[in-house]
Amino acid sequence: MQSLSEQGYIQQLSIDCVIFGYQQKQLKVLVPKLHFKGDFWALPSGFVFQNEDTDEAARRILEDRTGINEIYLEQFQVMGKAGRNSRAFLDRLLELNPEKLDAKQRQRKEYEWFTQRFISISYYALVDLHQVLPKKHIVDDAIRWFDIQEIPPLIMDHNQIVNKALETLRADLDRKSIAFNLLPETFTMKDVQDLYETILEKSFAANNFPKKILDLNVLERLDKKFTGAANKAPYLYRFRP
Amino acid sequence: MQSLSEQGYIQQLSIDCVIFGYQQKQLKVLVPKLHFKGDFWALPSGFVFQNEDTDEAARRILEDRTGINEIYLEQFQVMGKAGRNSRAFLDRLLELNPEKLDAKQRQRKEYEWFTQRFISISYYALVDLHQVLPKKHIVDDAIRWFDIQEIPPLIMDHNQIVNKALETLRADLDRKSIAFNLLPETFTMKDVQDLYETILEKSFAANNFPKKILDLNVLERLDKKFTGAANKAPYLYRFRP
Repeated sequence: MQSLSEQGYIQQLSIDCVIFGYQQKQLKVLVPKLHFKGDFWALPSGFVFQNEDTDEAARRILEDRTGINEIYLEQFQVMGKAGRNSRAFLDRLLELNPEKLDAKQRQRKEYEWFTQRFISISYYALVDLHQVLPKKHIVDDAIRWFDIQEIPPLIMDHNQIVNKALETLRADLDRKSIAFNLLPETFTMKDVQDLYETILEKSFAANNFPKKILDLNVLERLDKKFTGAANKAPYLYRFRP
Repeated sequence: MQSLSEQGYIQQLSIDCVIFGYQQKQLKVLVPKLHFKGDFWALPSGFVFQNEDTDEAARRILEDRTGINEIYLEQFQVMGKAGRNSRAFLDRLLELNPEKLDAKQRQRKEYEWFTQRFISISYYALVDLHQVLPKKHIVDDAIRWFDIQEIPPLIMDHNQIVNKALETLRADLDRKSIAFNLLPETFTMKDVQDLYETILEKSFAANNFPKKILDLNVLERLDKKFTGAANKAPYLYRFRP
């Protein structure tokens, strides 16, 4: 494998993405598994080309895993501890993969770049889960949605990144009209309330909530949803930022 | 000048700091001027050593300019545009400094690293302005406090960084008990209200504000302030996070 700089990337800089989806009152995160033996789950990650904006790099990494290029994303922190990567981690990767140890010296050299220190820029993304066909990247063995409460141990400090992403998403909900990015094209007010209650883990009074949301001035009201009982049918809405 | 990697720094990564201070109902920012001819005002900046956490690097850069090492700071964004630095900027620096042009080739080589692309991690810091003795760093020609409304044009995207820092500070005020870092050791409730009103550019009702602040549970009440009129004297408070 060529070194990062030979591939045209900025050295020692990586991007890690927390991709949030939502389905049936459950917040989910899309997590790939690295193509090594052992349980090496890791956030979708990548590097930044010399002539590429960091936001563009994040979009490229997200598109690689989701097939979608118009994604709402937010850069929310930097992981900058000097000791966040370690040679011990590479050792563990290679130990569990004896076929890679067979050509020990060559392999060690090949993966040496992996033990460098990386400053990681963290992004979170909000997607309509139903539009995503999770795609394995060349470095992935598998990729799947996890309920946020059931995310497995991830490599390095990636679980911390998920926790901070969730904390940031919750804080951002109050200030920005972003939650709708997690919903399908059209939805009812009840769908919006379920979504907010799921993310914030609290209940809202049904008589206050619609006003609070409509006051954001980002929803367009459409026809009533067809339920068979016309007079009780709820309106459908669409997000128009 | 040695290259960044020869000096032990991570390449293509910089840190920019917005240092906020407060005095007489005025929010201020500490800004140095680069030691080049021409008006090159720039945020306090620096680089990250290979064995240094990014937060530690920010503390070192802040201490260099303020003399204080216990500073409240918050990492709030990354400036990652590919085109944020440019050769044109170096040309302008050198053109205005003919004594540097005299040894043109040598100088150009010496400052070449400056035209590299840098990903910048932005921090804001909150200091008690009265404890700071602004210090010129070796690259500075001057350093001074500016009222936030009167910050001069800064190099590159540094004015954008200040704007985003202010926006983040305002949003953070609601969620974190941080504003007190801008005040002296002891202060009255009126001082706190003045501070909040200055940063947020809005007024609070004097009968609600103290409760809102005391509910944060971070203030310790001390003796009354000596004013000569004991019965009307306000209490002094101290920040105890």
